[in-house]
Amino acid sequence: MTRIGIVGSAGQMGKALKEAIAAAGHDLAGGVDQADGDVAGRVQEVARQSDVLVDFSAPDALSATLAAAVAAEVPVLIGTTGLDAAHLAAIDRAASRIAVLQTGNTSLGVAMLAHVVRETAARLGPQFDIEIVEMHHRMKIDAPSGTALLLAQAAAQGRGIALADHMERGRDGSGAARDRGAIGFASLRGGTVAGEHSVIFAGDDERVVLSHQAENRMVFARGAVRAACWLIGKPPGRFTMAQVLDLQ
Amino acid sequence: MTRIGIVGSAGQMGKALKEAIAAAGHDLAGGVDQADGDVAGRVQEVARQSDVLVDFSAPDALSATLAAAVAAEVPVLIGTTGLDAAHLAAIDRAASRIAVLQTGNTSLGVAMLAHVVRETAARLGPQFDIEIVEMHHRMKIDAPSGTALLLAQAAAQGRGIALADHMERGRDGSGAARDRGAIGFASLRGGTVAGEHSVIFAGDDERVVLSHQAENRMVFARGAVRAACWLIGKPPGRFTMAQVLDLQ
Amino acid sequence: MTRIGIVGSAGQMGKALKEAIAAAGHDLAGGVDQADGDVAGRVQEVARQSDVLVDFSAPDALSATLAAAVAAEVPVLIGTTGLDAAHLAAIDRAASRIAVLQTGNTSLGVAMLAHVVRETAARLGPQFDIEIVEMHHRMKIDAPSGTALLLAQAAAQGRGIALADHMERGRDGSGAARDRGAIGFASLRGGTVAGEHSVIFAGDDERVVLSHQAENRMVFARGAVRAACWLIGKPPGRFTMAQVLDLQ
Amino acid sequence: MTRIGIVGSAGQMGKALKEAIAAAGHDLAGGVDQADGDVAGRVQEVARQSDVLVDFSAPDALSATLAAAVAAEVPVLIGTTGLDAAHLAAIDRAASRIAVLQTGNTSLGVAMLAHVVRETAARLGPQFDIEIVEMHHRMKIDAPSGTALLLAQAAAQGRGIALADHMERGRDGSGAARDRGAIGFASLRGGTVAGEHSVIFAGDDERVVLSHQAENRMVFARGAVRAACWLIGKPPGRFTMAQVLDLQ
Repeated sequence: MTRIGIVGSAGQMGKALKEAIAAAGHDLAGGVDQADGDVAGRVQEVARQSDVLVDFSAPDALSATLAAAVAAEVPVLIGTTGLDAAHLAAIDRAASRIAVLQTGNTSLGVAMLAHVVRETAARLGPQFDIEIVEMHHRMKIDAPSGTALLLAQAAAQGRGIALADHMERGRDGSGAARDRGAIGFASLRGGTVAGEHSVIFAGDDERVVLSHQAENRMVFARGAVRAACWLIGKPPGRFTMAQVLDLQ
Repeated sequence: MTRIGIVGSAGQMGKALKEAIAAAGHDLAGGVDQADGDVAGRVQEVARQSDVLVDFSAPDALSATLAAAVAAEVPVLIGTTGLDAAHLAAIDRAASRIAVLQTGNTSLGVAMLAHVVRETAARLGPQFDIEIVEMHHRMKIDAPSGTALLLAQAAAQGRGIALADHMERGRDGSGAARDRGAIGFASLRGGTVAGEHSVIFAGDDERVVLSHQAENRMVFARGAVRAACWLIGKPPGRFTMAQVLDLQ
Repeated sequence: MTRIGIVGSAGQMGKALKEAIAAAGHDLAGGVDQADGDVAGRVQEVARQSDVLVDFSAPDALSATLAAAVAAEVPVLIGTTGLDAAHLAAIDRAASRIAVLQTGNTSLGVAMLAHVVRETAARLGPQFDIEIVEMHHRMKIDAPSGTALLLAQAAAQGRGIALADHMERGRDGSGAARDRGAIGFASLRGGTVAGEHSVIFAGDDERVVLSHQAENRMVFARGAVRAACWLIGKPPGRFTMAQVLDLQ
Repeated sequence: MTRIGIVGSAGQMGKALKEAIAAAGHDLAGGVDQADGDVAGRVQEVARQSDVLVDFSAPDALSATLAAAVAAEVPVLIGTTGLDAAHLAAIDRAASRIAVLQTGNTSLGVAMLAHVVRETAARLGPQFDIEIVEMHHRMKIDAPSGTALLLAQAAAQGRGIALADHMERGRDGSGAARDRGAIGFASLRGGTVAGEHSVIFAGDDERVVLSHQAENRMVFARGAVRAACWLIGKPPGRFTMAQVLDLQ
């Protein structure tokens, strides 16, 4: 029986993870939540009792999770979004010691979408403008979503460009047309939407639109549990959802 | 035979207007374009020979159009977008002397959409979050579109709030959830899209989405010609597409 | 405390209704399910203990529900779909004795959508072709959905035509273009989709699309409980979701 | 200068082809239309003066086009839809003598879409239900569209099944849930829609949707001219848009 520890266990994804762990017949090794205090101590204790950690908490909690996973020598799946360059560097350092899978989205459908976005960007060429639009519930505090960035990264790889040099975010105001070669982002917020993403390839007189809709959080929780189990026994390094699903 | 003068005659809407004027059996009184020089002189000459002026040019050209229309005592339809408060004040002044219809969108479908957006906003109440997303071709230089603002104004009227106090534009970055009661905007740009708008009412576990798609510019040109003809003979004042189409 | 009886209590909507009744602080008077046997006897017993009945079962069970509601003199909300003319006639007969609300959809958003569909059909006129497309989960056995028919009825009323004479269903094959004035239907089935409907008004070079998306069944259950409570104390007759929500 | 002959030259695609041939700097070798009479004689004459034939006419005209192309030993691109098994067999026979490309859609975007549909069907597996929905203008007389069938074929290939055994078309009526493994079709008709197709992969709690929108006929005409030129000099056989665009 696989033992899975959760960091961010009291949040909405934490609850969905507990349900998915039970549904898959695994064992909840323990949960850590900020409200309980002593996060660093608790996460170390849970890590020692787990075969793998799953973190859907907050950027601030990441360093404690990584330290605990390295100390206990267990792999970790990180689904927390809103990470900055320093967080990513910390993940890279941990990945020299343990297996890490960090992703903005743990659903099977989004891994598939990222794959076809990469191919389409590679083949349609820059005469097709790329735009990414996403919608999430009214409480989400980061924009664009981690998944939108993940899809943009796939498009940039397909096209052979550096994403950071071609992002057009928060479009507002007058005086400037779209930059040629840009990847545009738009974020919608409202209601209880679990997560919807579309990547639009807009050419002359035609569009190809590749989309994903999550109906609820369970789809992410099931995918996270599947990926976490897959990570057990892997050597140190960074892994991807595409590898979990054998898409590459 | 109705004589229609065009300001902005060399632009893409100018060309579509000429086609629509011919198709409807009217007479093109003349066209004015920035590239021809002496815009002020030309527009006065065209105004004197017209029963109505149609302006799809640029914000900078507006004062010359209004002055010429007032001097010649002909009504004017203004479809130019990207207007600021000073432009709107100039239109109000002209409207004390002549009939003016200024709109961000001259299609029948958008006038209908604005009508049902107003009703839906009035009846569903603030527990439904309102978001407006639009897509236009890669050359458009203002965001959000004039039509998105027009639809937001309809939603704000329906809800009984001042739009200016509730706009959430250019959403980007982390740290803040959606404001309760906000009307959000997102602008997509790419390809040759003539114009698509969706107003999303996102409630708990459900959404109502009211949308319009223009397939090409002719739909705007036909509506503009219809509205321009309707303006002839009207007293001084501000008029709306809803009045042209008897939607109110 | 309002006592609500459920017919079809073991189905997925039955479970959602129990959750919604509890969430709203009402009392579950009892549930009837086909698998328990003696449906006619059970529904009479539940009806006597209820202030209102809610039926989300199957067309075959309808006559027992209506008989029990009439006998116990309690109002009834019928959300069962797939009803034929004989079922509707039986409902009309019952409505001469008790208050009945029969609807293909109990969500607030769909009631709103039906309202704006009626208005749009009335004002845009027959040069706009009307098409209705819906998607539901893979287990749904009737097509088109009850909600699609409800929306089509609203469109037909708006246009002043009899729906039965203008339906274009199950479009397949070659040799015939769309009938002028037809209302077309298309049904998609797959996955776990709770219910999505779009009414398309397709004119020359433009479209108005009015849509609703339900994210899960709770939205229907909450609306059904709200409507059931509203029915208590009403005189005999047929009532609508629009009346519950004061949309007319 | 490439000489291109058109069969079906007076239809709407015929007119778009003439515009695309001129825009690409090629030579219109001649056009054949049913209304002119003696189609068999005319098409032979045009074939002799052409480097390649393009047929967007009607299924009835196909045998004359194939006979003329074989006699003149010129390749032929066939974009006519609504073909049955006998037509396809006739194309196969002609393809033993000349190069033939028969396709339900000549746009670059649709060729790309078919490619990613095939991959997605191959990798997501049968727990994702496949549905195809398309919309075209009110005058189209066949349903589903040729492009919908082309996309379904791509999905069936990806999944390793025979399409003919798994089609669910013209869904209407009650009593039957979706067949497991079926590929469903739905056809919308209305207005002036040039052509829109979506392939939906609907799984548990999530959907992947892959779509194409054509804004007008020029996108098909441009693609047809590009494919026709590519065919010149090819050996006898059947070719595909994917080969023209080097997608395989």
